Amino acid sequence: MKKQVIQFLKDNRERHLQELEDFLKIPSISALSEYHDDTVRAAEWVQQELGNIGFHEAKVMESDGKPVVYGEYIADGNAPTVLVYGHYDVQPVDPVHLWDSEPFEPTIRDNKIYARGATDDKGQVFMHLKVMEAVISQDEKPPVNFKVLIEGEEEIGSPNLPKFAEENADMLKADLVVVSDSALVEKGKPTITYGLRGLAGIQIDVKGANSDLHSGEYGGGVVNPIHALVKIVDSFRDENNRIQVKDFYRDIPELSQDERDALAQVPFNEDKLKSDLGVSDLDGEEGYSYVERTSVRPTLEVNGLYGGFQGEGIKTVLPNEATAKITCRLVPDQNPDHIVEQLTQHVYDNAPKGVEVEVKPFDKGKPYVTPFDHPVIQKAAQAYETVYQNDTAYIRGGGSIPIVAELDRILEVPVVLMGFGLPDENLHAPNEHFHLENFDQGMETLAHYFYLLGE
Amino acid sequence: MKKQVIQFLKDNRERHLQELEDFLKIPSISALSEYHDDTVRAAEWVQQELGNIGFHEAKVMESDGKPVVYGEYIADGNAPTVLVYGHYDVQPVDPVHLWDSEPFEPTIRDNKIYARGATDDKGQVFMHLKVMEAVISQDEKPPVNFKVLIEGEEEIGSPNLPKFAEENADMLKADLVVVSDSALVEKGKPTITYGLRGLAGIQIDVKGANSDLHSGEYGGGVVNPIHALVKIVDSFRDENNRIQVKDFYRDIPELSQDERDALAQVPFNEDKLKSDLGVSDLDGEEGYSYVERTSVRPTLEVNGLYGGFQGEGIKTVLPNEATAKITCRLVPDQNPDHIVEQLTQHVYDNAPKGVEVEVKPFDKGKPYVTPFDHPVIQKAAQAYETVYQNDTAYIRGGGSIPIVAELDRILEVPVVLMGFGLPDENLHAPNEHFHLENFDQGMETLAHYFYLLGE
Repeated sequence: MKKQVIQFLKDNRERHLQELEDFLKIPSISALSEYHDDTVRAAEWVQQELGNIGFHEAKVMESDGKPVVYGEYIADGNAPTVLVYGHYDVQPVDPVHLWDSEPFEPTIRDNKIYARGATDDKGQVFMHLKVMEAVISQDEKPPVNFKVLIEGEEEIGSPNLPKFAEENADMLKADLVVVSDSALVEKGKPTITYGLRGLAGIQIDVKGANSDLHSGEYGGGVVNPIHALVKIVDSFRDENNRIQVKDFYRDIPELSQDERDALAQVPFNEDKLKSDLGVSDLDGEEGYSYVERTSVRPTLEVNGLYGGFQGEGIKTVLPNEATAKITCRLVPDQNPDHIVEQLTQHVYDNAPKGVEVEVKPFDKGKPYVTPFDHPVIQKAAQAYETVYQNDTAYIRGGGSIPIVAELDRILEVPVVLMGFGLPDENLHAPNEHFHLENFDQGMETLAHYFYLLGE
Repeated sequence: MKKQVIQFLKDNRERHLQELEDFLKIPSISALSEYHDDTVRAAEWVQQELGNIGFHEAKVMESDGKPVVYGEYIADGNAPTVLVYGHYDVQPVDPVHLWDSEPFEPTIRDNKIYARGATDDKGQVFMHLKVMEAVISQDEKPPVNFKVLIEGEEEIGSPNLPKFAEENADMLKADLVVVSDSALVEKGKPTITYGLRGLAGIQIDVKGANSDLHSGEYGGGVVNPIHALVKIVDSFRDENNRIQVKDFYRDIPELSQDERDALAQVPFNEDKLKSDLGVSDLDGEEGYSYVERTSVRPTLEVNGLYGGFQGEGIKTVLPNEATAKITCRLVPDQNPDHIVEQLTQHVYDNAPKGVEVEVKPFDKGKPYVTPFDHPVIQKAAQAYETVYQNDTAYIRGGGSIPIVAELDRILEVPVVLMGFGLPDENLHAPNEHFHLENFDQGMETLAHYFYLLGE
């Protein structure tokens, strides 16, 4: 049966691309309220598509934010159930003038499809739908049951989906969750993201006098909020780039040698990266490789810092306030609430006198990891390798998809992150695109995976 | 004769105030090019006024910037010659909506005249003109010769006056320079500013990758320019707020006990200052009082620092550049060129790897001091004390008037800074005003001073 399924995908490629273009034409930008109706249209498009491909159930459901699309196709009560999670919303398109073709007029050039959402995540959601269509239409006894959960707020941090998933946990019950919203580490290299970093952040506001002061009259006498903030921020790390916040590393288990060995296999070209970024050196926490530092080690990065005069030339002002925005990427088993508490305490402990310091927390997300030797991960690798004819890279993503950890917590099943994008596909940037070779090979991989899960 | 002079000032008070209002009505803002014609009008107003009060010579002279007004009244080749320096230009008036009356519609309320330039410096320039008018009209044999140099670029740092003064040094030859462009330390307290701090500054630009990066993907692996800049800036001072730049303090002579005693006499109310500014503590270089720190000790203040995201909430970006603007207030005998060199070297010595650091110098100004026991200073104190019936405070100004050090260098005569403003007269801010009691007592003081100099 698998053979017919794959043949069906090949035979229907042209139609599929036209349907994908229809999906990509909807400007379902979740961050901008003027596109609200378009996000609803995108949800309805997915619902209708679920009906078209033969799902028994397909509905647009209310949440506290954008609508959520849910559908299911239960073939056999004894077969394993796969829940596919994805999102129909996309990033804003500014600056529009840097796009070579209109962001919502999909265009194929050099076997790549250009459009906002092409790789993140409409293209990859669409692949799942088409593989399911192929399985349902070609196989009287599909190997797995399908459930589909497509949300419209991933690009704004999925603020409402955890509550939705908690309230609908029974409906969403499955044996595993599959998410295709990530990328291969490089062309032709199967890649499974078996962990994601969590997120915790704070804003530090330092206030001095009740107005800006003349630096000649008051300089040297009154505490400068920028100096105070710089002192606080500099206290976060030592000369080896180890974070100095108390108990910051407390809950992180030692990396196993197996895991370090696997990470050492991840393709990484330091010279190419330095040349791509235009930097002379890479640097970070001592004792860890670049790949480790950007995936399995926590970070503390200042995302923004500002105070005082920013115009051209000089203004001899002693500013009265300064602000820093800081986020940490967290790894298991760091707890975001604990980290925010420790960061906050660290700031107060290091605040110089003569200024008022306030700390505000930002939204948080838990780190996530599935053991990479778990059977559902190993079967995904097998499916990839059958199609791509290449070993799988097991990586832990440096970024955060907070909803992944939430789904893991609420549904208590493993989450498999098998993406088909590529690192240079400009997601969140102008000229987002998706390589059609991965559209084709990815669908074939998913077909193999569903059959492997059913064995 | 002095008596008639003072009586003349009293008899003509109403006319003087009307003339002052005419002067204040001219919006001679030097920083904004759309007011250029008004600056020229202000220069012509001063020229005409010099003619009206009986000067032999009064001319508007070209400089490389705004015109300079020069005039002279030579009564007696053997009498000492006083050169009065001042400026006809004023600061911008933004934010206009915070003014209670129009900035260029002078209004008298509570014996104060409100207008941009009222205290800085048109009001004080005008006082000199009126005292000279009184002396010339009432005394057949004036005690001193008068020269007047009024420029139009003080508020933008007097970029062209040093060259002008050098080229016209013969014309400007005098026995002393008198400047009234400062304030009494408090109401009723004669105040002589016998020194001013100099200025040296740099901008530090730190560049990382060629674009902003995703803090999840690259965080922990690529050097964050904000971290690098914070490290550099924090290295400037130790925990006692001593500047750590090599040889920063090298050329500063030890403060004499006499001078420290005099500074300890300067009225200073710490509780009032803290309450006025709304701060819990004052802090600065250990081992020096607030007055010392803000007048006779050098400073290093960050006037602005910025990099990365400044909007609401959070953006998980690893920014690709960060900038700091820094100025030092300098004291004798620190050399601004040497300080800029040392600052620059310090930045390079403390720059972390993985980022590119560039340092640009800002305009510089030399520090200035006249020994406070110099006879021309002591006579100024005597004049003040006759009128104000109070001891003189000898202070060194924390701010910088770079042209003062330049006039001292070029003309090689002492400069006496005797101002009649008050600290809360909102110079450079909305609702600038000038207390008319100091307009009256100040003119009387100047009359006494000219006669004392002639003795």
